[in-house]
Amino acid sequence: MPRLRLDLAYMGTKFAGWQAQEVTGRPHPRTVQAVLEEAAGRILGQTVRVQGASRTDSGVHALGQVAHLDIPEAKANIDWQLALNDNLPHDVVVTRAAFVPDSFDARFDARSKIYVYRLWRNPRYVLPQVRPFVWRTRPVDLSSMEEAAAHLIGTLDFASFRNQGCQYRTTVRTLYSITLDASEDSPEAAFTFHGEGFLKQMVRNIMGCLVNLGLGKLRPEDVPAIRDARDRRIAPITAPAQGLTLKKILYEEDSRGE
Amino acid sequence: MPRLRLDLAYMGTKFAGWQAQEVTGRPHPRTVQAVLEEAAGRILGQTVRVQGASRTDSGVHALGQVAHLDIPEAKANIDWQLALNDNLPHDVVVTRAAFVPDSFDARFDARSKIYVYRLWRNPRYVLPQVRPFVWRTRPVDLSSMEEAAAHLIGTLDFASFRNQGCQYRTTVRTLYSITLDASEDSPEAAFTFHGEGFLKQMVRNIMGCLVNLGLGKLRPEDVPAIRDARDRRIAPITAPAQGLTLKKILYEEDSRGE
Repeated sequence: MPRLRLDLAYMGTKFAGWQAQEVTGRPHPRTVQAVLEEAAGRILGQTVRVQGASRTDSGVHALGQVAHLDIPEAKANIDWQLALNDNLPHDVVVTRAAFVPDSFDARFDARSKIYVYRLWRNPRYVLPQVRPFVWRTRPVDLSSMEEAAAHLIGTLDFASFRNQGCQYRTTVRTLYSITLDASEDSPEAAFTFHGEGFLKQMVRNIMGCLVNLGLGKLRPEDVPAIRDARDRRIAPITAPAQGLTLKKILYEEDSRGE
Repeated sequence: MPRLRLDLAYMGTKFAGWQAQEVTGRPHPRTVQAVLEEAAGRILGQTVRVQGASRTDSGVHALGQVAHLDIPEAKANIDWQLALNDNLPHDVVVTRAAFVPDSFDARFDARSKIYVYRLWRNPRYVLPQVRPFVWRTRPVDLSSMEEAAAHLIGTLDFASFRNQGCQYRTTVRTLYSITLDASEDSPEAAFTFHGEGFLKQMVRNIMGCLVNLGLGKLRPEDVPAIRDARDRRIAPITAPAQGLTLKKILYEEDSRGE
């Protein structure tokens, strides 16, 4: 069966995350995967599984989620982008749909991922236009946060920043960069994380630590110590989901043209 | 009584515009002015009038609306920004509150205004994150739109772009600039209008004309002819309100520091 790659954007606010959840005896939570499978199933007239690259948490937004699904040959000539967008609610859209080789796997072929975490550094107000996408904090010292973030770049054991209960085989991951975008004209500040892979809630746990630092609750030299402790209990704050956006997933096929 | 200047941002989606409307016998429409007067009245324990600089239409957004109101001396020591934001719904916020000379008038002291109109030039999808703020169109020829916009700069009679039923004394207005921001990476394109003053729906009527041009329904040389006809019936398309944002209102006091 032809394999279809979907590039997706969604507002996470009203979703219980990406992954479809099996719940017995009560209504299923509204997840992006479930909503997509329902839309694709309606078009196909049969149930279908959609495999996503990143299992974003409840409330996390996406501009560049990627997924794949297999389409019966007889339905391959449908304009899948338009058909899905006609059948999806307004808070999730297919930004691109393309047939790819059968071997393509949205999750396992991902080479690296880019997440953006947006802060709003003014507790006196937040613009309604950005409110759903930011974490409101008191003013933070961005330069010390940026300095501390440098200690988290590289192939490192991120056990201190894993989710509690996370049962990965290894907690070593490679972070290529953490980049800060901020201007004095706006209370907004965005930290962009580019990494080969991320532990569950890793970006939110790092941001919780960096914001604590920016508020003066930690010293910059504490960050290497927290990292080296490999103990989640040392840095227990998790930044709220709504500040996080999955911006892009990079594949080998994407880098050829760049 | 001390005069308070309020700088305001709002999402216009759920507002019937700025201006409080007197309606007999049924619930008042939800307007920004009415919501502000209600919040200020609750804090003051008495009714109060809030005067806005720009009477934005139903559905139009704002990042830089300005208003003023008079506060009894006894209540002047309240932190008005926080007090109002605590009493306002989430789709309108006070971004700044400051006492100003009694002579300040938000409407009549305005020197110029900046509006932004955002287009989304891809009918196949629209990002949920920007959906409430854009007009979805088919792909448009931006360079011809930009070229044509140049014919609307200056002190001109904008009668062809006034609202039907508009009864201003004069339809002559001064437009300082129309600036295009667009990149090939995104379907979004924003036209920024800076003018001394605007007729009701003038930006939306100009955008309707420019989009018709960008779609090939008009030729660039038609635009000066439409302008010179001074007849609204020649250019009858009004761009939808949701693409429009009142970005900034400039006052003499603001320009001193810049």
